[in-house]
Amino acid sequence: MSIITIVGAGMMGSAIGFPASGNGHEIRLVGTPLDREIIEHARKTGEHLTLKRRLPGSYRYYQIEELEEALLGADLLVSGVSSFGVDWFLAEILPVIPETLPVLAVTKGMQDTEEGKLIPYPHLYAQKLNRKLSLNAVGGPCTSYELADHDPTEVCFCGEDMETLRKIKALFEAPYYHISLSTDVVGVECAVAMKNAYALAVSLAVGLAERREGVPGKEHYNSQAALFGQSVREMRKLLKLVGGGDDNIVLGAGDLYVTVFGGRTRKIGVLLGRGMRFEDAMAELEGITLESIVIATRTARAVRKLIAGGKATAADFPLMLHVDDIINNGKDVNIPWGSFEVETQL
Amino acid sequence: MSIITIVGAGMMGSAIGFPASGNGHEIRLVGTPLDREIIEHARKTGEHLTLKRRLPGSYRYYQIEELEEALLGADLLVSGVSSFGVDWFLAEILPVIPETLPVLAVTKGMQDTEEGKLIPYPHLYAQKLNRKLSLNAVGGPCTSYELADHDPTEVCFCGEDMETLRKIKALFEAPYYHISLSTDVVGVECAVAMKNAYALAVSLAVGLAERREGVPGKEHYNSQAALFGQSVREMRKLLKLVGGGDDNIVLGAGDLYVTVFGGRTRKIGVLLGRGMRFEDAMAELEGITLESIVIATRTARAVRKLIAGGKATAADFPLMLHVDDIINNGKDVNIPWGSFEVETQL
Repeated sequence: MSIITIVGAGMMGSAIGFPASGNGHEIRLVGTPLDREIIEHARKTGEHLTLKRRLPGSYRYYQIEELEEALLGADLLVSGVSSFGVDWFLAEILPVIPETLPVLAVTKGMQDTEEGKLIPYPHLYAQKLNRKLSLNAVGGPCTSYELADHDPTEVCFCGEDMETLRKIKALFEAPYYHISLSTDVVGVECAVAMKNAYALAVSLAVGLAERREGVPGKEHYNSQAALFGQSVREMRKLLKLVGGGDDNIVLGAGDLYVTVFGGRTRKIGVLLGRGMRFEDAMAELEGITLESIVIATRTARAVRKLIAGGKATAADFPLMLHVDDIINNGKDVNIPWGSFEVETQL
Repeated sequence: MSIITIVGAGMMGSAIGFPASGNGHEIRLVGTPLDREIIEHARKTGEHLTLKRRLPGSYRYYQIEELEEALLGADLLVSGVSSFGVDWFLAEILPVIPETLPVLAVTKGMQDTEEGKLIPYPHLYAQKLNRKLSLNAVGGPCTSYELADHDPTEVCFCGEDMETLRKIKALFEAPYYHISLSTDVVGVECAVAMKNAYALAVSLAVGLAERREGVPGKEHYNSQAALFGQSVREMRKLLKLVGGGDDNIVLGAGDLYVTVFGGRTRKIGVLLGRGMRFEDAMAELEGITLESIVIATRTARAVRKLIAGGKATAADFPLMLHVDDIINNGKDVNIPWGSFEVETQL
């Protein structure tokens, strides 16, 4: 039996312990300062407040002040924070853990730099830390509640060292949770970051159809498929520009597929497609700043710098730039369909 | 004004005339011997019997005996037949048209050869004909009724000669119908053929969830996304094996997306996922032989020959082989989730 300490008791942080728990490992779920209620509720009821699922019996619960106890004898630390918790995790958690304790982050996304680079979180952590840790991350299409329900799921763990990845995989691999491994951290994380912008883009087509037909309209798929195809085209280009392997489009397309169908990224895309302005759409979502909007903005900012630096052209990323214009520059939805046309001469 | 003669008055054959009609061209819709009722009904009512849409005023209607009249002065011949009509089209139509008349086929799919090659229809036609024709084809995600409704749609016309493709494009390009062009006929047609097997595969996940939860169940997306991702992986491999350009995955993914959501391929995948045997599922669909089943079978047969010839391994195509086992070898649905795992070492 191994001990897995998860810091960050949000939905995904909490759900990823399910397959490891089923493998007989002890799961110690540590709430961040924002998770107090979740931890209290779980202690009292055995249920997760936002995931709305019963947590496995092998889960133990800790408030952040009990972190030291939760880390005692741990074999793996999971970062369960969202991208909004990355700075906190970097400042408060990574400096106090043993250097021998490997880390697996569920946090998706990247940070962009002044120079237009996109840096995956494991690399960001490594740059900012004065210590050498084994920093690994999870990519791929996985919604937390379906994972908690044991739905068949395929993800990818990435990190510098294949042997370490194999050991971490052994803790989690389950009949319903399948794990590919990759040392291409930039490629995996980039694929997973980009899909935020593109899931919003594909969802625009749903809203555009509803604008013509009323709500709720019948779904129209030609237009969604056109945007899905263009998303795949642009994701492949961006993967190449950041130096990620081309085969990561498998993760990007799968993750795009799952994101188009669920949650708030789709919802805001649909509202925008109907003709609502970005500020009003965000207000409709009760002003919660969406992780996907932040990540889409960063990705678009990096793309604009790549274009400014002559490494790409605006014609390479018409859809990404349009999404950015909508969410950051106050533009109306006006899909540049014609700009998706290409001529391929053998 | 140009004259476009469409032979084959099925849904897609009839719908592709809409954008050209909007551009002011004359559309002559010629029924095959199987389309008599559609032509009669259209003449009487101006509506299409199966597409269930009013046809544009510039459409003229012809029974097959009136073909010669329909071809008089024509600038383009569209083949609107399905893959079941390919032999008929080759025997009855292509030998009697002027050599100067370019052809555009909406027929999707390929034929496999004894040696395990996949031959796109334009090449098949060229091989079997004793005359030199300009043979072009349409690929990409497009359902006929959405095209008839002027939904935004992106497709790709492919053929040997870019200049000819540009001329054909000029007839059809519309604010809602966008056309990429490609001389990579094998790549475009292969991408479009493969998606039939994979749309069935992704739909299995819907049925599998319903098997656990009852019908209609809630949709589960992790498992669909896992199958979608694996489909993209295998499609890229097959594209490479047949010598098609890698960027055609844009068409393959888009076409897969649209096919997962509509029609009988999804329906049979869902029924199989629920646990129904293939014969029973086909019976439920009233015994209509599905074009997609035929194309999936051909593609799988070619893949098995590639494996037998040492050009690929079974590990390259676990999902395609499983679909083939279900539809052709009487196997139960038992998705080989674990075989989708890969290790990527930089």
